[in-house]
Amino acid sequence: MQPAVGYIGLGVMGGACAGNLLKAGYSLHVYARRPEQMQGLVAAGAVAHASPAELARHCSVIFTNVSDAPDVEQVVLGENGVVHGAKKSSVVVDMSTILPSAARNIAAELAGNGVEFLDAPVSGGSQGAIDGTLSIMVGGKQKVFERLLPVLQVMGKNIVHVGDSGAGQVAKACNQIVVSQTLGAIAEAYTLAAAAGVDPAKVRQALLGGFVASKMLEVHGQRMLTHNFTPGFKAKLHNKDMDIVQRFAEELGIDLPGTDLVAGYIKEVVEAGLGEEDSSALSTLFEKKWGKSF
Amino acid sequence: MQPAVGYIGLGVMGGACAGNLLKAGYSLHVYARRPEQMQGLVAAGAVAHASPAELARHCSVIFTNVSDAPDVEQVVLGENGVVHGAKKSSVVVDMSTILPSAARNIAAELAGNGVEFLDAPVSGGSQGAIDGTLSIMVGGKQKVFERLLPVLQVMGKNIVHVGDSGAGQVAKACNQIVVSQTLGAIAEAYTLAAAAGVDPAKVRQALLGGFVASKMLEVHGQRMLTHNFTPGFKAKLHNKDMDIVQRFAEELGIDLPGTDLVAGYIKEVVEAGLGEEDSSALSTLFEKKWGKSF
Repeated sequence: MQPAVGYIGLGVMGGACAGNLLKAGYSLHVYARRPEQMQGLVAAGAVAHASPAELARHCSVIFTNVSDAPDVEQVVLGENGVVHGAKKSSVVVDMSTILPSAARNIAAELAGNGVEFLDAPVSGGSQGAIDGTLSIMVGGKQKVFERLLPVLQVMGKNIVHVGDSGAGQVAKACNQIVVSQTLGAIAEAYTLAAAAGVDPAKVRQALLGGFVASKMLEVHGQRMLTHNFTPGFKAKLHNKDMDIVQRFAEELGIDLPGTDLVAGYIKEVVEAGLGEEDSSALSTLFEKKWGKSF
Repeated sequence: MQPAVGYIGLGVMGGACAGNLLKAGYSLHVYARRPEQMQGLVAAGAVAHASPAELARHCSVIFTNVSDAPDVEQVVLGENGVVHGAKKSSVVVDMSTILPSAARNIAAELAGNGVEFLDAPVSGGSQGAIDGTLSIMVGGKQKVFERLLPVLQVMGKNIVHVGDSGAGQVAKACNQIVVSQTLGAIAEAYTLAAAAGVDPAKVRQALLGGFVASKMLEVHGQRMLTHNFTPGFKAKLHNKDMDIVQRFAEELGIDLPGTDLVAGYIKEVVEAGLGEEDSSALSTLFEKKWGKSF
């Protein structure tokens, strides 16, 4: 029998990951601030708890997948948080995307209570979560990573131990730097093509056979052409992630001008009321600005 | 027997393409402004000519692969240029990367003389030229494209007819927009990682398994880590291409801020005396600026 595993935060991503743990035979304990999010999993055999602390009493591994650093801090360190119920040597694995320095602080707080911590943000979207094919970027102790690897493999495929605490969040920030600028670059390329009277779809086809071929150009390049912005990755969440990248860069005292440029576009998308759309909708800003339709 | 084919401009790219035509059994005629560049091909069976016009008298298809628009104009339309020897209905195929509007002008000039024209810039570098696996982006008449396809297939693998005259050059400009900004994004990601004390190599590994996986991250991401800037694609040529993109955007009356940002980096690389290095050397600007080594 598999060990008892807890999952806190059962949104689109967390709910899918928790479901995969249950299917893989783990004894699953769940907590969500909105109790209705637990119903489906409880019906499938999970045990619901009234607080993170109570959940923690029953589990040796506790996953958290909530929105931002304050939410993680609340469910892990706050009143009735995980730390108040966790057994010594149990492990908290946070799959949320948060500020790397916040992850390091949470790790230090937990260490003071004899509890291990891994930051393990993911990439791959809701489909990756459902399929159990997420890319998982992990920060924390090598030994703890190795111990947790079999459980992580239930949820993801490409699982990399990037370094010490916070390193998983740093890798996720790097991921968002490349994702966002690739979106911006494709939008600029389509703008040039459309302005020149050339079919952006043909340009995409030509580029897909060459050195710049990528999943980004394939999937998001196609979204921009068909104006299919059903998420995918909601602009409001991408905006939150870009805010993390920019705040972290500021903490480190570095400038990332390309990141700042595209973060501005994503913010503009959200402010235009398109926060629920896929973030590749930033291409519509270019279409509007230059009066060119892709 | 294959038709007689001419090749003008026998640099790294042109020389390799011409060699593949010869190997494929085409009767090859060559011209280069520096006669020593013809020696190897002549030894292998090609016929050397004293001028583009003279070469054109013997060929139904004439490739040009020179540096920039003025060079193409000179060998095609100038004194002793192709147009002065070309038979009616022969086809000039320009594989150089030049301003799309310049390609359109050359096409119009040739059409006035009963000569067809395709713009067919490539991507894939010197190795792609040697292997005959270039990506070829073609602009011009559909019928002429179809007629030329078997010859193009000797030199490339992904060959796309993008649209009318100039459309091949537009696609190439779009390609350089995405290439350059992807380089910039990877450099920013590595900067953030290094500043945070996280190994950029581990970050690359994590990202390679996810949605942003690309040949760019694989090859150029690795170049930046090992500081191996043996071209590849020389920064001075990338700089020339970015200049074309920016001039073309200006002609069209559009701004491409992300492109402008990275074009500035590539110019800086050239001005720092690194023009002969691969353009991914722009990462060294970030290392120097922030005192962080990747």
